[in-house]
Parts: sequence; C-alpha cells; structure tokens
Amino acid sequence: MSSSPAGSAFKPAFAGFADMVRASFAKQGMLQAIGARLVSIEPGQCRIDLPYSDAVSQQQGFFHGGAIGAIGDVAAGYAAYSLMPQGSEVLTVEYKINLVKAARPPLLLAEAQVLRAGRTLTVCRSEVFRVEGSDRELCAVLQATMMRVEPAVR
Amino acid sequence: MSSSPAGSAFKPAFAGFADMVRASFAKQGMLQAIGARLVSIEPGQCRIDLPYSDAVSQQQGFFHGGAIGAIGDVAAGYAAYSLMPQGSEVLTVEYKINLVKAARPPLLLAEAQVLRAGRTLTVCRSEVFRVEGSDRELCAVLQATMMRVEPAVR
Amino acid sequence: MSSSPAGSAFKPAFAGFADMVRASFAKQGMLQAIGARLVSIEPGQCRIDLPYSDAVSQQQGFFHGGAIGAIGDVAAGYAAYSLMPQGSEVLTVEYKINLVKAARPPLLLAEAQVLRAGRTLTVCRSEVFRVEGSDRELCAVLQATMMRVEPAVR
Amino acid sequence: MSSSPAGSAFKPAFAGFADMVRASFAKQGMLQAIGARLVSIEPGQCRIDLPYSDAVSQQQGFFHGGAIGAIGDVAAGYAAYSLMPQGSEVLTVEYKINLVKAARPPLLLAEAQVLRAGRTLTVCRSEVFRVEGSDRELCAVLQATMMRVEPAVR
Repeated sequence: MSSSPAGSAFKPAFAGFADMVRASFAKQGMLQAIGARLVSIEPGQCRIDLPYSDAVSQQQGFFHGGAIGAIGDVAAGYAAYSLMPQGSEVLTVEYKINLVKAARPPLLLAEAQVLRAGRTLTVCRSEVFRVEGSDRELCAVLQATMMRVEPAVR
Repeated sequence: MSSSPAGSAFKPAFAGFADMVRASFAKQGMLQAIGARLVSIEPGQCRIDLPYSDAVSQQQGFFHGGAIGAIGDVAAGYAAYSLMPQGSEVLTVEYKINLVKAARPPLLLAEAQVLRAGRTLTVCRSEVFRVEGSDRELCAVLQATMMRVEPAVR
Repeated sequence: MSSSPAGSAFKPAFAGFADMVRASFAKQGMLQAIGARLVSIEPGQCRIDLPYSDAVSQQQGFFHGGAIGAIGDVAAGYAAYSLMPQGSEVLTVEYKINLVKAARPPLLLAEAQVLRAGRTLTVCRSEVFRVEGSDRELCAVLQATMMRVEPAVR
Repeated sequence: MSSSPAGSAFKPAFAGFADMVRASFAKQGMLQAIGARLVSIEPGQCRIDLPYSDAVSQQQGFFHGGAIGAIGDVAAGYAAYSLMPQGSEVLTVEYKINLVKAARPPLLLAEAQVLRAGRTLTVCRSEVFRVEGSDRELCAVLQATMMRVEPAVR
C-alpha cells in the first residue's frame, strides 16, 4: 500500500470522483428500498444517512442491525471509491461491525473515512451515530477492507 | 462459557424455542421489506433464504452486501436465540463478514450454527450460499457474537 | 451499555486503576518474553510499545503479525480494564485487526482507547504505529470487545 | 476469485509447496521464540501446535490471546500459501478472532483451511483447540484474508 496515513489529506485520482460516486449510489436498489441518502462525498470520506421506517426496523422498534451494517459498509465503500481512478469498480472484501448501543429512531448517520489507500486494497473505518437535533450518539463502529476492480479484468 | 463445543448436539433451554424464534422473526420489519424467509430453526442452527429483487440489489445486479450481511447476521442471531431461556432477548454484539464471491441471482441461503453457547455470550458462524436448483456456491462467511438479554434488566 | 460515548472523558470506577493494570501487566509471561512495555495508562486509554528483536520477527525481517496483534489486543484490554471496578478481571471476547502496512523496525507503539464501556462489555479501538524518532506511520488498526469478569463467578 | 469452494479438494499451483511452507516457517523468529511447531501442511490446509510455557502465558496461567491469535493467523497464512505459485509471498490482510474459552495448558492445536482461493486474495478459517491426550476443546475461531504478493512488485 502506498498512500497517505490516517488523518492526512487524500488526493483523488479522478477529478470527477463525486459524480462517479453519486452515479453508483443511484443504481443501488437496496439503498433506495431502505431510504438511505448520500449526504456528502469528499476525497477519502463519505457520509450517508437513514431515516427510521418499517423497512429498517427490527423486533423491538430499533433500527435493524442489517440496516446499520449496510450504511456503514456503503459509506466505507464510497470513501474508498472516491480515491480510485476513473473506470474502477469497488468491492467490499470484508467488514467487521460492533453494535455498541441500540439504535433508536429517528435518524442514523454513517461517517466513513479511509485509513489507508493502496493500489488494490483500501482500509476504512465507519462510525454510525444516532442523530436527533444536535445530539449525536455512537451506535456502531465498523472496520472494512475494500478492493479496487478494473471492469475489464473481472 | 458453559455449553457444548462445536459439532456436538445442543439442547434447547426452552421447549417452545421454535415458536419463540418465529414470533420474533415475524416482527422484524426489515426482513419483511427485503423478503427474507425463515427456512428452518433447530437447536443451535438456523437457515434463512432471500430471493433476488430490486430491494436487495446493488449497482451491478448482484445481491447487495447489506442484504447478505443481514441474513447472515439474523440467521446467527436466531441460532443463538434457539438455545436461550424463555423470556430472553438476543442482541448482536458484533459480526465480521467476508464476501468471498459476487452473489448473483436467483436465491441466497444463510446457514448458521452455534459454535459455543455461554450464559451471556454465544459465538456463531454463518455461511451464505448462492443456490440455483441443486447447485450451491459459497458467497460469504460470517462470524458473530450474540448476547442474551433479560428484558427486565435492559 | 451505560457509559460515555467515544471522545468524551471516562471516569475510572477504581482510583487505583493504574496500579491494578501495572500489576496485571507484570504477570503476563508472554509480554515479558517478547519485550512489550507499558508506556502509559489513563482512564479509558492505554499505550504499549515493543522494540524489534528476533523474538517478534517474521520471515522477511518485519514485526510478526502475531506480535502486532498481541500489543494491540493487550492495549485494548487494559484501556477497558482501567474503567472496571476493583477485583474485576478482563477477558478478550474477540478482536479484528487490519495490517495496513508492513511493520519495519525499530519500534511499534500501540495506542488504545475505549469507544464504549458497558456494565459487562467494553468496545475498544487500537492503532499500532511504527515509530522512529518523531516519525509515526500507521501499521495496524484493531477493533475489540472486552468482557468484565468477577473472579467469584468464573 | 476463481478457485474451489469450501470443502472441495484444492490443487496446489506448485508441487514443492510443502517445502516452500517449511522454509518460510523456519525463518519466523517469533514462532521459534514462542515454541510453535508446524504439524502438517496439505493443499489448502495447515496445522500448527504450541506447548504451554512462560513465553505464551497470561496473568491467570492460561495461554495468552496473542499466542492463540499468532498460531491461528500463521496456520491460516500457510493454508493459503500452500496453493500459491512458486516465488509468491503471503501477507495477512486482516483477521478476526473469537476467544470462546480460556485456553488452559498443556497444548494448543490450530487447524486452518482455505474457504476460497482467489488470484490475489484467499479467505481462510482457523480453529484452535486445547488438546490433552485424546480430548479436544474448541478455544478460538479465526477468519482471515490473505494476500498473494509477487516479490518483484512489492
């Protein structure tokens, strides 16, 4: 791996990275189905939020762990994707999530950042917060490995 | 932890465990929204399947990683829950998933088993297969920690 | 879980927490064998370093992943332990580590912090840096779940 | 990824894979320092054991989690390495381990198998057992991602 360490500024390989991410996001049926929204995309950083609805609920009226994992994973994937060259695809190799607090309505916000970007693999971290007004409460932390794929060689 | 090691038979603490799991499953709005189905529940084992639809798709026409993680996590949770005493709730502490192959339509099947059941924590493994007719192909492997919660002490 | 979110100050349950950690550290044969040193212990935070030697090397002359995991895990465990009541023991439930860069000599530093401390479970994060003079380079990131055990009930 | 699914037979890319693994193992200073031994290497499978000693102990007289993680990780790495072409190196991208039972003396055995081998990445699972005579008890389960590196391109 050859790029910047955690905390430093990342430079995108492709000036149109934000449009690339938005176009990809719009094609994800599951994200539409659950109501996830792309809040922001910066080089090496991505934020996605998710309002509460039946489509993301579990048996006790909290956000479902599957929905929390989904927005944490997707935010991490797009944080990684923002640094990739034009024409790349991004795949999740793996992720690990700790659900540290029951996630109550009304809104979740996933914030992801790249920790290390390599030629092939990028390691990211996401934090998922419950948000109500100006209150933020940490609900989940996720650590993920993303892979760059060139469409021609898949 | 005080229960059986991996591979041996588990004894449920509550004879009505299967109804307890089915009742919990039916209350999960997200599982209804994405179309997940409880295929089987045995002591320490659970199977859940998921037909392909727009609601579980990603940008390339495969199953979304969030949907794969959701059924793997839920199957693991119910495998653990099947061994818990009446009146317990089950929470996912954490899970880790490797997506080992792009998950194509038409159907996914998650098979979960308990590896070790303790008084408070239970460790489970899920494997998610793409199924078409009699063909099965491994798409994801998940390792999870589940926690028993007594409703009164939450 | 009932304690402070990430980033806020943690209050130790036991005023003698630092001595409790140092006494535990001194009893760990493996840490002595590999040469790990307790650098600092604060409420919810712990730092451990490890000089390079044959006892922590792998086949290419880098620090061994097992040594990197060990100091990351131990730092996380003591960050959690620093907040526990007198007489508690701490056990690692699980951890996940990404090795983001080959860890070259001369020195590694693991910095751990508690993300969320609960009555039974505590979730921590460790970052492991290669240090040479004033240079720091991120080599590994670890996310862990720690469990409080009361000796009497083990 | 393009190779065999879990459970089927793997074919090594290099007939001399076992010697390649043994030569690599012998160069790992940490494994010598803690007393780990290569028990067997087959295509896609590896077993490593570890007798109890002060060098692998923690504060309560059990095997240290760092030692358990080390043999689980190394066994997974060599299971992956056994399938790689001559001249490759193997790196651990990440692993996740659950410590499901306190690991008492006298001996641990790590058994690793490849779940999916790809051109670049290989996903493995390790189980670590406490062994005494003919008794085996599961102590830890590990899931890992390994990467093939061609020395020339590092």
